[in-house]
Amino acid sequence: MKKSTFPTPQDAEAAFYEALEAGDLEAMMEVWAEDEDIVCVHPGGPRLAGYDEVRASWAQIFGSGQRLSVHVSNQVVLSGMMLAVHSVHENILVQGETRPRAPVAATNVYLRTGNGWRMILHHGSPAPQAPQAPRAGVESPKILH
Amino acid sequence: MKKSTFPTPQDAEAAFYEALEAGDLEAMMEVWAEDEDIVCVHPGGPRLAGYDEVRASWAQIFGSGQRLSVHVSNQVVLSGMMLAVHSVHENILVQGETRPRAPVAATNVYLRTGNGWRMILHHGSPAPQAPQAPRAGVESPKILH
Repeated sequence: MKKSTFPTPQDAEAAFYEALEAGDLEAMMEVWAEDEDIVCVHPGGPRLAGYDEVRASWAQIFGSGQRLSVHVSNQVVLSGMMLAVHSVHENILVQGETRPRAPVAATNVYLRTGNGWRMILHHGSPAPQAPQAPRAGVESPKILH
Repeated sequence: MKKSTFPTPQDAEAAFYEALEAGDLEAMMEVWAEDEDIVCVHPGGPRLAGYDEVRASWAQIFGSGQRLSVHVSNQVVLSGMMLAVHSVHENILVQGETRPRAPVAATNVYLRTGNGWRMILHHGSPAPQAPQAPRAGVESPKILH
């Protein structure tokens, strides 16, 4: 049973990034719905599905001891009654490094449950900022579409 | 005014991948909602927002003449009344190449409009298949979380 309740998707999102910065596994998993259909794609990683896989990935990431400072910007919100979709840029500074890495483009999806809003999908990928970058399809042979 | 109507998110998704395979810009943009809040992240690319940016990116991609064959697998569906979120693997074969590239993990979001379901977000990123891959956070220094 979840202890925390997030009255809005924004509350759940704030808790997600606080848990990420704190490297706090229990706080992170409080944000996620306990569901077999949750999905998480870490930047550069495979798609993980289901609570156990998602939890194991965060345990491993936080277990490395790496600490991050995350500034979220450029939020676009797409909302329904039961689902909310947030597209954001994560500007991440890794502790011990002086320069931020390329921003991460993240898609976060929240579900309204009987006990507040919970994350059900997180999809992150390294992304150049649009204004400074060549358009998709030109820069890299990795870009298929 | 859109000519096509997609009665379900699955119909919109089928039309999206048909347009991608056909390299058909008009058919592709029929699938998207005409909205300033639509979001598209091509694999390895920046986040694009708004109808004009999204359309320009597809025009450029299709203009290259590269043709793709796409097999969609491993679909996870998260549905509400107004929004539907599909997580899939895109297994892409580029015409002229004999071996498929790494699958693309894609998050597709559809909105129920007054004229059927339309895509409002597509987020793709190159992803190793989970079973064969080391866990996120181990393989690459690019993986921040």
